Amino acid sequence: MTTSRRTFIAGAAVAASATAGAAVNSYPKLVHHVFFWLKNPGSKEDLAKLLAGLRTLAAIESVRGAHFGVPASTEKRDVVDNSYSASEILFFDDPAGQKTYQDHPIHKQFVADCSHLWQRVVVYDAIAA
Amino acid sequence: MTTSRRTFIAGAAVAASATAGAAVNSYPKLVHHVFFWLKNPGSKEDLAKLLAGLRTLAAIESVRGAHFGVPASTEKRDVVDNSYSASEILFFDDPAGQKTYQDHPIHKQFVADCSHLWQRVVVYDAIAA
Repeated sequence: MTTSRRTFIAGAAVAASATAGAAVNSYPKLVHHVFFWLKNPGSKEDLAKLLAGLRTLAAIESVRGAHFGVPASTEKRDVVDNSYSASEILFFDDPAGQKTYQDHPIHKQFVADCSHLWQRVVVYDAIAA
Repeated sequence: MTTSRRTFIAGAAVAASATAGAAVNSYPKLVHHVFFWLKNPGSKEDLAKLLAGLRTLAAIESVRGAHFGVPASTEKRDVVDNSYSASEILFFDDPAGQKTYQDHPIHKQFVADCSHLWQRVVVYDAIAA
């Protein structure tokens, strides 16, 4: 068992075949992943505004973790969608935590400030299984 | 500052407006999020096989964190896609870590064992920004 791998597993315990000594821990159960497509995908200024707005969301009290990003330079494959402009991942303990976020004044302010920047949003909510 | 919120932020430091006392930390920079649509979306057995296969992936040495899930019971909205069967999130330090995973025998074994179960896969790779 090594802690240096810093591996955290959500959902059921890792399968018995996981012999690499993963330090088993848990992410919060609910992950909320939102992808944004900017109206002006080539605008670094619009992207910076959107990312700045996204970062304010981490202050909402039910948020347990956050990752804000842009498409990574991984291998281009048919199954990889790298057409989006920005990615927002927030972790919550449960659907109630996500609902608190959804209705929160900070989230509403973000939408008011930034929704003119995007043309399309897709949301995926997943619960650990 | 409270540590009980267990909030971790990837990317740039949280905006100054984040006044809720978030404990600022980092997720690994690269997140690899894969959505699977089963050929038989109503088959609990096929879903269980897929989830069991996914859990083996956490043993790959470059994996820094994992969340495996199914659609959550959050509010149904036009922007929410809950049509998928299973969600796989893996965190890596960088694109090289994702490449190690992509080419790893455990990943190849998972594809050999489980690819007959799914009809569609979509991958999003995002790097903290």
